[in-house]
Amino acid sequence: MLTKVNKILFGADYYPEQWSEDVWKEDIRLMKIYGVNTVILSVFAWVKIQPNEDEYNFEWLDYFFDLLHRNDMYVILATPTAAQPAWMSRKYPDILPVDIQGHQRKHGGRLNYCPNSSTYRRLSGNIANVMAERYGNHPSLIMWHIHNEYGNYCYCDQCAEAFRSWLKNKYGSLEKLNQSWNTLFWSHTFSQWEEIEVPSHLNEILPGALNDRDGTNFQGMAIDYKRFMSHSLLECYENEMDQVKKFSPNIPVTTNIWDVSNRLDLFKWGCSMDLASWDNYPSNLDHYTSISFKHDVIRGLKQGNPFLLMEQTPNQQNWQHYNALKRPGVMRLLSYQTMAHGADGLLYFQFRQSIGACEKYHAAMVPHAGHENTRIGKEMIQMSQELVQLGDRILEARSTTKVAILMDWSIWWGVEYSSGPSVDLKYSEQLQHYYRALNENNIGVDLISIHDDFSKYDMVIGPVLYMCGEMLSERIKTFVTEGGTFMTTFFSGIVDDRDIVTLGGYPGNLKDILGVWVEETDALFPDMTNEVMIDSKGPLQGTYECHLICDIMHCTTASVVGTYGKDYYKGTPAITENKVGLGKAIYIGTELSEELLRKLVLQYCGEKGIEPLAPYQKDIEIVQREKSGKRFTFIMNHGDEDKLVELPIGVFADMLRDQTVEGAISLTAKDVLILEQVIEN
Amino acid sequence: MLTKVNKILFGADYYPEQWSEDVWKEDIRLMKIYGVNTVILSVFAWVKIQPNEDEYNFEWLDYFFDLLHRNDMYVILATPTAAQPAWMSRKYPDILPVDIQGHQRKHGGRLNYCPNSSTYRRLSGNIANVMAERYGNHPSLIMWHIHNEYGNYCYCDQCAEAFRSWLKNKYGSLEKLNQSWNTLFWSHTFSQWEEIEVPSHLNEILPGALNDRDGTNFQGMAIDYKRFMSHSLLECYENEMDQVKKFSPNIPVTTNIWDVSNRLDLFKWGCSMDLASWDNYPSNLDHYTSISFKHDVIRGLKQGNPFLLMEQTPNQQNWQHYNALKRPGVMRLLSYQTMAHGADGLLYFQFRQSIGACEKYHAAMVPHAGHENTRIGKEMIQMSQELVQLGDRILEARSTTKVAILMDWSIWWGVEYSSGPSVDLKYSEQLQHYYRALNENNIGVDLISIHDDFSKYDMVIGPVLYMCGEMLSERIKTFVTEGGTFMTTFFSGIVDDRDIVTLGGYPGNLKDILGVWVEETDALFPDMTNEVMIDSKGPLQGTYECHLICDIMHCTTASVVGTYGKDYYKGTPAITENKVGLGKAIYIGTELSEELLRKLVLQYCGEKGIEPLAPYQKDIEIVQREKSGKRFTFIMNHGDEDKLVELPIGVFADMLRDQTVEGAISLTAKDVLILEQVIEN
Amino acid sequence: MLTKVNKILFGADYYPEQWSEDVWKEDIRLMKIYGVNTVILSVFAWVKIQPNEDEYNFEWLDYFFDLLHRNDMYVILATPTAAQPAWMSRKYPDILPVDIQGHQRKHGGRLNYCPNSSTYRRLSGNIANVMAERYGNHPSLIMWHIHNEYGNYCYCDQCAEAFRSWLKNKYGSLEKLNQSWNTLFWSHTFSQWEEIEVPSHLNEILPGALNDRDGTNFQGMAIDYKRFMSHSLLECYENEMDQVKKFSPNIPVTTNIWDVSNRLDLFKWGCSMDLASWDNYPSNLDHYTSISFKHDVIRGLKQGNPFLLMEQTPNQQNWQHYNALKRPGVMRLLSYQTMAHGADGLLYFQFRQSIGACEKYHAAMVPHAGHENTRIGKEMIQMSQELVQLGDRILEARSTTKVAILMDWSIWWGVEYSSGPSVDLKYSEQLQHYYRALNENNIGVDLISIHDDFSKYDMVIGPVLYMCGEMLSERIKTFVTEGGTFMTTFFSGIVDDRDIVTLGGYPGNLKDILGVWVEETDALFPDMTNEVMIDSKGPLQGTYECHLICDIMHCTTASVVGTYGKDYYKGTPAITENKVGLGKAIYIGTELSEELLRKLVLQYCGEKGIEPLAPYQKDIEIVQREKSGKRFTFIMNHGDEDKLVELPIGVFADMLRDQTVEGAISLTAKDVLILEQVIEN
Repeated sequence: MLTKVNKILFGADYYPEQWSEDVWKEDIRLMKIYGVNTVILSVFAWVKIQPNEDEYNFEWLDYFFDLLHRNDMYVILATPTAAQPAWMSRKYPDILPVDIQGHQRKHGGRLNYCPNSSTYRRLSGNIANVMAERYGNHPSLIMWHIHNEYGNYCYCDQCAEAFRSWLKNKYGSLEKLNQSWNTLFWSHTFSQWEEIEVPSHLNEILPGALNDRDGTNFQGMAIDYKRFMSHSLLECYENEMDQVKKFSPNIPVTTNIWDVSNRLDLFKWGCSMDLASWDNYPSNLDHYTSISFKHDVIRGLKQGNPFLLMEQTPNQQNWQHYNALKRPGVMRLLSYQTMAHGADGLLYFQFRQSIGACEKYHAAMVPHAGHENTRIGKEMIQMSQELVQLGDRILEARSTTKVAILMDWSIWWGVEYSSGPSVDLKYSEQLQHYYRALNENNIGVDLISIHDDFSKYDMVIGPVLYMCGEMLSERIKTFVTEGGTFMTTFFSGIVDDRDIVTLGGYPGNLKDILGVWVEETDALFPDMTNEVMIDSKGPLQGTYECHLICDIMHCTTASVVGTYGKDYYKGTPAITENKVGLGKAIYIGTELSEELLRKLVLQYCGEKGIEPLAPYQKDIEIVQREKSGKRFTFIMNHGDEDKLVELPIGVFADMLRDQTVEGAISLTAKDVLILEQVIEN
Repeated sequence: MLTKVNKILFGADYYPEQWSEDVWKEDIRLMKIYGVNTVILSVFAWVKIQPNEDEYNFEWLDYFFDLLHRNDMYVILATPTAAQPAWMSRKYPDILPVDIQGHQRKHGGRLNYCPNSSTYRRLSGNIANVMAERYGNHPSLIMWHIHNEYGNYCYCDQCAEAFRSWLKNKYGSLEKLNQSWNTLFWSHTFSQWEEIEVPSHLNEILPGALNDRDGTNFQGMAIDYKRFMSHSLLECYENEMDQVKKFSPNIPVTTNIWDVSNRLDLFKWGCSMDLASWDNYPSNLDHYTSISFKHDVIRGLKQGNPFLLMEQTPNQQNWQHYNALKRPGVMRLLSYQTMAHGADGLLYFQFRQSIGACEKYHAAMVPHAGHENTRIGKEMIQMSQELVQLGDRILEARSTTKVAILMDWSIWWGVEYSSGPSVDLKYSEQLQHYYRALNENNIGVDLISIHDDFSKYDMVIGPVLYMCGEMLSERIKTFVTEGGTFMTTFFSGIVDDRDIVTLGGYPGNLKDILGVWVEETDALFPDMTNEVMIDSKGPLQGTYECHLICDIMHCTTASVVGTYGKDYYKGTPAITENKVGLGKAIYIGTELSEELLRKLVLQYCGEKGIEPLAPYQKDIEIVQREKSGKRFTFIMNHGDEDKLVELPIGVFADMLRDQTVEGAISLTAKDVLILEQVIEN
Repeated sequence: MLTKVNKILFGADYYPEQWSEDVWKEDIRLMKIYGVNTVILSVFAWVKIQPNEDEYNFEWLDYFFDLLHRNDMYVILATPTAAQPAWMSRKYPDILPVDIQGHQRKHGGRLNYCPNSSTYRRLSGNIANVMAERYGNHPSLIMWHIHNEYGNYCYCDQCAEAFRSWLKNKYGSLEKLNQSWNTLFWSHTFSQWEEIEVPSHLNEILPGALNDRDGTNFQGMAIDYKRFMSHSLLECYENEMDQVKKFSPNIPVTTNIWDVSNRLDLFKWGCSMDLASWDNYPSNLDHYTSISFKHDVIRGLKQGNPFLLMEQTPNQQNWQHYNALKRPGVMRLLSYQTMAHGADGLLYFQFRQSIGACEKYHAAMVPHAGHENTRIGKEMIQMSQELVQLGDRILEARSTTKVAILMDWSIWWGVEYSSGPSVDLKYSEQLQHYYRALNENNIGVDLISIHDDFSKYDMVIGPVLYMCGEMLSERIKTFVTEGGTFMTTFFSGIVDDRDIVTLGGYPGNLKDILGVWVEETDALFPDMTNEVMIDSKGPLQGTYECHLICDIMHCTTASVVGTYGKDYYKGTPAITENKVGLGKAIYIGTELSEELLRKLVLQYCGEKGIEPLAPYQKDIEIVQREKSGKRFTFIMNHGDEDKLVELPIGVFADMLRDQTVEGAISLTAKDVLILEQVIEN
């Protein structure tokens, strides 16, 4: 993909426009000390480049581009369209957005424009065009970085107009729209397109409402607005992408995704990115598996192709409530964790720390002290030297797991907007609960779209597969019939993609595949628990706490794996297993304890011959990538204590230290091993 | 009242407009299986009936009316005015309301109109007229159900104009208004009516204010706005009622009250309803006495006449945070609890569960599975069969208690808006605290207005009788002088109905009746308590925790019942008793523990010969209704354990099982006994 | 200052406009019983005085003025401009403000005007002029009380226009403004003054932002807006002051400061007040040192001149969540605490309790009962009698401490707006943490501005001296070099007064003076702690918990006093000491426990010969004032238990009881001793 590059990218955002030429020279010197090979430029430089509509100012950027070129560094060039200049907001007030509370906003901040403003589209397209014409063939340019962290919604009249057009295009007729949104409920039938308002707080949340969540009157409409907003922003991205492709068709284009959030349908975005990239800003309190989860989501956007980490901080952040320091070794640990999950490049935000405004206390490679003689400086230098040592050996290596978890943004939105059964039922948490069970078992996972090919996998897990139309259920049926193991949970198969309930009993289209019928769904209060009891002899045997939701169900063709231990549905099935064709479908009616879920996935993986790289060891993560007959194993100690780690079977070359290892090895807290091994056939 | 009907109503809301004719037929079949005898129609069908201003569409409703008639089912017909069609909001934007934050709202949701919009009044009156003309004499029609769950406030310019007119009418002159609201405070004297603004957040809450409650600058004004809003909505109701009365003067008219809330002055509404009805949606965490309290408030709206439960859910709700299932037997238990407190009809929301939009996870008689073979289905069928067994025997039976609790909405508003003494002092909670003591003692209670006749009762309790003008205090004095027992608490007699303090010492006009003078009122922090010590030998003797408020008082003519146990007012009176004429007046200066309050009301009831039906037994509720020389006793086990229940004295016929009972009987958790007994004279 | 007066002022706010003449006469009688010598008039009487633009109504005020004069009472006369009349808001809607959420407000409440409205300036200036002309030379008048509790911000277009003018005046050019606010960050460079918007929520807070604090995009701008708002309100004050000075140049002018808040730069306000005054409304839960702190801040506004307590409540408040009573003796205790810290007058809010509107449950000298025969009445009478006993002996006496704490409002704003390191880092709390250590040690403290003279002190403490430009650091250096002890903490020396980081390493300009370099700043999560270990033998030795922030630092020339006990920076310096010239500079890198901080300041004070008046005794406060060779010692027991209190060395005359005391004395809970002593030279 990055045809010009045969090494792991290592570098940072840099803002030459914020510094004097003296500082530039010092920074080139420091970049070399730090081993930087790639610099991201002009992320927020719009007003610097275009101080008014008719004037451009590129001298500084020309100069800095060449300076980097002379010093053998690559450039990732950003279009600066995430923050429009003040002159633009004043000249074209239609650019300013309306927020979800219905307030017309004023100029200030960033991501503060309407994605459906034709003026914004015109001016952002223009700046992309001008920059691409000027730099598209510069020898240092290796990638386009469109905009920065899309995700800004708007509720203005322009958006309302565009939403109606989008709906006309989607539904064809008001009759079909009315059906899809079930508008006969509460007398909401629309008889003119113009009657449709955008779902802001001005028509969604009544002050004092018991359920204070937005989007919960007509979920079908609210979900469509999410789809439309994600689509509108994607149009903004593609509008710029089209410009840069005109001038540099072979330079890959991406945008740095902000977190795995519910604001963008990332699988759709993946289709328009040449390679996926994202910004990783965990808290010190996050469990490592939640970070791994996000990496694997991003890898899934391009079906497993290597991705890029566009931003992470060398040390503390500034915008969390408590901006704790990254402990010694953690920057390195998180960097290798990123690579373990498929990244071929590690960029940091930012090279030199700001002197003013809201990010001035965010860490950088070069802190306010202004030199490299710091703990973080030493860690950065060690990091870059190790990357040089690794060379191109791992580049383009891929995950080869046989286990996939299904993820879908419409489901996320549907579950989020659902009025009932429980405000504590969060789609992303449920996905991560399953992900964690596999990740802690040292079993690789692909996060895939419901439209992706299932046949590559032996096991597919769809937690909270809330929306499940016939096409999806048919694909799952085929997968199971042909021998796959499918696992799903409560609140699955409930609706189709219009958020209209599939009648005939839950879990709807999945009922036959799973061999169960769910009669009722109990929502537990936060301080309540139930139990799952497993009687069958074997590793699963025991009694385990469960939480959140308890489906009360009947087996039609399924057999019972575990039963509830309490309440009026004591003794009824909590976990079931159904044999269909050559495969199996497992239904889990409640939120299992981590321990039981870990045992359960291990058992079902085992049945399919999917073995963990090593047994579960608290805080130890083991992940593999493969390429050209070689297997690269990353072993990471996320804990605060040194551990004797049981290695996967085989003899390995330690890529960072001159040694071979096998059996078990002592791994210091926060340390990483990267092992190379020839795959035996 | 329901002259056409001689059985307990049993049925549900149904929305034929949301289903195809196939489903209608299946649903008639299911209604018969369930024993439904009454169906509520067209609650939200405005757009279906009137797709634009000049067109009506009644065929479907004609058809369904007749279908029900052919199947011997009654119809409660709703005017569909709780949610205007989208075309109406667009054609007449003056219908759209302004919320308390001052935001003009857009079309969406329900209860989203301005109650003072003349257009809304015209169009809602019109649809009521048209429907009454068409169906007013239909043989199946047994009741009008106006609108749905009134309670929507508005703060628009139309409301401001109407508010000023209402004030002119109430006060006659600005001088009197200025006096009543004490506007010389903070230079607020109005010199023109037009200067009066409605009390929205735009003039009430300053961002960052320490006390973030609205309505707290000029309480007199804020209370008047509540009165005005309740009145405006009542005008909306009466506007429609007048239309339907024209065509069907003998069909009773009601509206389904949403909860016992502080948004409507329900006693005023009671005057305009032919019979009271309400919607009962408790949480599984609510104590049974809080539900009984609400039933008794509703019964009080028509001075003890039987009421109707217009809505309850067969199983879970969808709009609470945790929508737990109703446990087995609970639907039945809550239904009989409703009847025990005076209902002659039980309707459920709804018959068939929605397929889309925000209530799709709310339970229904027919769930998404689409059939009756469910736990809930079986419970509904048992319920209707038992009701058939009960026949008309209980219909029109009434409570005959000698104990009343005073309730008043202006007091509710006054206490809610009061700046001081404690944000934790909530009027409704204090009423329920006293109600609970009686209810748990198995002593019946009437909830009555301060304007109702006291002479029917031997004991009248007025907790937090904050507003007490001379007329009310005179009536209380007469009641006590003639032999009644009156009991009241802290924060009573403070102001008149303008919210102007009665000078000369607390509790104002009640001072002489109570024989105490309250010098100071201490507000306890949430983690603080004091104690009440009762030295006199007898059942009250002991030391009990007290909370929230401690009045520091002096007895003038009263004698001391209990004293404080701590703090600088240790040893001073906490509870006093004053003999006046033939009666007694008790003052309780603090929030007593449940235990002490239960003992205290028992003692004072006993003095008046008011005996509990049976002694207090945790979770056991015993309630009676009487009619034509017969007494019906409902015995309910609200707990989770089977209990041996001590019965009232006498021999009873068990109306649901073929047996007579006396003494004590074992009652399963959630089970109910309904006993018939001839009253001996 | 108060040339007409030679006694301690004792009195209250009174609102004759709210009462009839009958009540006036009764109140004069009661004032005499209470010993009132001073009455504050017309605080909110604007509409009474000026019922429309062309009419004045002074008869009532003339009458009352003379009534007080005849009864030998002084008048403090307020301009009534804190709440404009309703007719004014309606006639001149430009007076109404826009709140921080961007909402145009309606008439209602108080402090509800735009400080930059030229109409408001004209009309408030006019009423001050008219009142000064009429009463400026009245023999009873002793002071002007301008407005009431300034602090209302506005975000309207008039303010935006005035802000731009203020900025033009401050910066001269957009180029300088852009540099100062670092606007190249996020493409925010302004090219026209008109592009600058005021920092309301409409451009600052994005709904759903992770960091939900306002003012955090461009801190330089937000701090400037605070400076501008404080300045705008000060202009309002001076606009009125100028009017009253025309007619009564010798009558001192003040305004009653509402709390020590971050809304006004009080040191700037102090310059325009003839004497400082404020309103003291602590909660029962406040520690006594936090009240002392505020008194000392107010005293500092006029460089130690005696101040006036313009308001405190005789008993409970009404606007707190839990309005507990003042316990017996507490009103007296708080009153003497006020005098101990420098007040020469004690006024109460208010004389007679309101009958309506939001303050009706706020205590007064005369409660709703209407007489003086109450606990509070007795306490007030005792108080005034004691003040008569004290006579003029203490008047004009001053603090003579050698210890100062630096306070600065720009720092407060800068720390408050800072994005990072921790939301729990609050400037005012940190100041109070150091203040408490000294106050509990019975060592007097002056709170001084960074512009005040340091040379009067032997020890200067600047906690969180976040903004420290070169001028300030030079002054500190001089102070230390010449022998002073300077102490500061983490998050000091970070930026200049533009909020632009001082490069080269923290603590910036203070690095050399302190002899340390701070490499990293760790923010602890709320449930985390670290430890400070002090090994050196002596009173400091031990291990102490520390919190919030841990600076990780290197000593350049400093020596280590204490080290961290945990985490990866265990053993590195936590407290350091640097000898510079004749003095010492101490750096404290973390939030110390109260115990350690108390020991630490004691040690460093001791080195400078600053001795505590008596050793630390929990709940006992000892404070001194001096005048003309006499020393007045206030000894207060803030606890709930009687204590044997160790006195300062010497023999003292007890000013309230006829006795001399020395050594130790038993002091009842809440009691006060005031001791007189001749200073021996």
